[in-house]
Amino acid sequence: MSLIKPRTIAGTMELLPREQMIFQHIFDTIRHSYERFGFIPIETPVFEEKDILLTKSGGETEKQVYFVQSTGSLQQGYEADMALRFDLTVPLARYVAEHERELNFPFRRYQMQRVYRGERAQRGRFREFYQCDIDVIGKDKLDPIFDAELPAIIAQIFESLRIGDFTIHFSNRKILLGLLSGWGVTEEEKRKLILREVDKLDKIGTDKVRDAIAALGLTAQQAGEVLKLIAHTGSKAEVLAALKNVQCNDPVFVEGLNEVSQMVEALAALGVPEKRTRLNLAIARGLDYYTGTVYETTVDAHPEFGSVCSGGRYENLASYYTKSKLPGVGISIGLTRLFDLLTTYNLMPQHLQKSSVQVLIAQMDVALRPTYLTLASMLRTAGYNVENYLEPAKLDKQLKYADRAGVPLMLLMGTDEFAKGSVIVKDLAAKTQTEIMQANLVTHLNTFFAKAV
Amino acid sequence: MSLIKPRTIAGTMELLPREQMIFQHIFDTIRHSYERFGFIPIETPVFEEKDILLTKSGGETEKQVYFVQSTGSLQQGYEADMALRFDLTVPLARYVAEHERELNFPFRRYQMQRVYRGERAQRGRFREFYQCDIDVIGKDKLDPIFDAELPAIIAQIFESLRIGDFTIHFSNRKILLGLLSGWGVTEEEKRKLILREVDKLDKIGTDKVRDAIAALGLTAQQAGEVLKLIAHTGSKAEVLAALKNVQCNDPVFVEGLNEVSQMVEALAALGVPEKRTRLNLAIARGLDYYTGTVYETTVDAHPEFGSVCSGGRYENLASYYTKSKLPGVGISIGLTRLFDLLTTYNLMPQHLQKSSVQVLIAQMDVALRPTYLTLASMLRTAGYNVENYLEPAKLDKQLKYADRAGVPLMLLMGTDEFAKGSVIVKDLAAKTQTEIMQANLVTHLNTFFAKAV
Repeated sequence: MSLIKPRTIAGTMELLPREQMIFQHIFDTIRHSYERFGFIPIETPVFEEKDILLTKSGGETEKQVYFVQSTGSLQQGYEADMALRFDLTVPLARYVAEHERELNFPFRRYQMQRVYRGERAQRGRFREFYQCDIDVIGKDKLDPIFDAELPAIIAQIFESLRIGDFTIHFSNRKILLGLLSGWGVTEEEKRKLILREVDKLDKIGTDKVRDAIAALGLTAQQAGEVLKLIAHTGSKAEVLAALKNVQCNDPVFVEGLNEVSQMVEALAALGVPEKRTRLNLAIARGLDYYTGTVYETTVDAHPEFGSVCSGGRYENLASYYTKSKLPGVGISIGLTRLFDLLTTYNLMPQHLQKSSVQVLIAQMDVALRPTYLTLASMLRTAGYNVENYLEPAKLDKQLKYADRAGVPLMLLMGTDEFAKGSVIVKDLAAKTQTEIMQANLVTHLNTFFAKAV
Repeated sequence: MSLIKPRTIAGTMELLPREQMIFQHIFDTIRHSYERFGFIPIETPVFEEKDILLTKSGGETEKQVYFVQSTGSLQQGYEADMALRFDLTVPLARYVAEHERELNFPFRRYQMQRVYRGERAQRGRFREFYQCDIDVIGKDKLDPIFDAELPAIIAQIFESLRIGDFTIHFSNRKILLGLLSGWGVTEEEKRKLILREVDKLDKIGTDKVRDAIAALGLTAQQAGEVLKLIAHTGSKAEVLAALKNVQCNDPVFVEGLNEVSQMVEALAALGVPEKRTRLNLAIARGLDYYTGTVYETTVDAHPEFGSVCSGGRYENLASYYTKSKLPGVGISIGLTRLFDLLTTYNLMPQHLQKSSVQVLIAQMDVALRPTYLTLASMLRTAGYNVENYLEPAKLDKQLKYADRAGVPLMLLMGTDEFAKGSVIVKDLAAKTQTEIMQANLVTHLNTFFAKAV
């Protein structure tokens, strides 16, 4: 029989077990932080009906969808009527509209699942990747104060992950939109185009943004004022002060200014460290979907990563599926991409490099197997993740196995130790070993693992 | 704009948040038990290349596959070249073959992901469902002792879930195969057919099995002996004694008998309660894939559920993809189906019915919002999952929200309490409330939640 070459589909991230454990740790950290802030979980099926999934966007997204069809459907010559989700927002909209009466509003959901894009595979682009989303959905209305909670959660997550300094940038699209409107730029399309240029500041620099917005009809003075605001690098208080000095009575501007002021106050009340958030008016998010607050998160040492966590406030989640008005605010971590960056740039913290297996019990003497199994069982009851080495193998091979697996401790018990009621505890990283009485083993492990955290 | 009716695809399980939390709890219990026994995680992409996925089975499975194709590929008129995984065994085989040199053997992996079958949707049949698998894969060989570990893990999981009594049935196909061979039934195909009839004992009863195996060529005495063995309901020790009395020198029979004896001894050493496992020779698993130990798990009060956790020992995992011989043993929990049964039959334990949100802080006075936010932040640091109610709403509405969400405690602080430095703790289930000083709040919560577990 000729062999089929085993291969993973390009554009997917498949990890070896030790990497998978690190991934899992990050995933758990995100999930527990979401829960700590009172978000509750949902999961949706990987596929949706085609007409539900493709209402929203048209254009670019439709070119990247994966269609799904069963053998039966194919044989009958039908067209595919299902497709894999390409984000978690459309499934959320469908979910909320479908289960509206059974949900509690404001609806605070988290969802951490894989999404799919039929892209050409290339470095850093994934066809299958995890998104970790939180959204708060209101019925008819949603207080702007919710916009302050999301950066507080994101700050806690990135602090816990210990990947170095990071900044959560936020702004409110109403500020610039209102300012423009106050200057008589009332044409919606033109204002959006100006915001799109503002969004490019980091990439194309001050001069090009100035030219672009002037070309869209702003006077030199107006363009100057916009640039002064969006290039401001001061503290939140300083940026707020600058905004309060702007002569503008446009109600949208005033609303935006109120919302960011309230956000700054709430961030302090939530105890978010000052340096973790920045009021950055150049953040505009290209997407017209967002109507108020917008967020982006950067890793300070690596601006080239771009944003690793983004989102914002939107007017209405599910207008395609329900007449109810469902305003919301949400933010999303693209976990697969983030993990890829952390691995590639070697930013994965040391404390994550150990195996989830804490203790490996060696097989020194096959006649003692029942004793080894019982010992493992006792340590599991004490709360440890324990593996029995159960193949007949030389100690050297067993040590190599433990070392390769990243297991921190190995227990050795031969007939001598068995007779004495002792066991040898081998610290594989420190390359040291101690013989201790079995009665003291759990205490010994407790001390060792308390230090190891 | 006309609305699109929001609907979930038939044959998938989509849960409301409170059900999702219970699901999540069960999922976590399974995962932590797998880790406690030293299993390590992998995840594989949801799709595989068609030729890799469909090598193994042909026939039935191929009719149930979901094919996947990007918009681009469709437009070019290509055939679909990817398909969604229909189990976790084929992806495991591909994974081990592909990463063979980077893995540590014996390779003890757990994998808990969704799988897909293009079935006609009907009650209790899912098109998308979770499988929670563990397997131990050896290189060239794998000691039979590993077969004892899997039921020990499954016993721990079902004990933790507190869903009532259950039994893990196990047998070893070598016993009956060897016995038949010892009687001169050497034709492989015929022996497999006999085992398939034996496997039907529960469904068709003793007499029909007797007729069927006699029709396959066994003498009346032989059929009688088989029936005596497979219908034995005694303890493991009694069944072992019965087996030791069988006059059979066939080496396969002897090997099978040795393996189950060793298993019985190891189960005791691992501390698995006697009543949780049963040596049941009628368990044969229809699948020829299994070559030694086989497992099935039943919920004692609901034999009609059939097996909720099955598996067994196989000779070679990945012969389609590698020349290496990779024997293994594995077991799988079909979590979606299990969850569906537990819900339908109201077997979900009480202690799982609470929200993951432990405390809801009411908004009594909008002017105190910063205080509420800071209080939440303090309680989160103390380890609690806390939600701030942030909409202006009457207390009654807020109470209803908490109650509907299943949140156990609500904190109320108006201007009076604020002035005194106190807070009112409302127990929503007991419908009681106490006013306590804020300085004592964490201690109060610690006591409450220690009791609540």
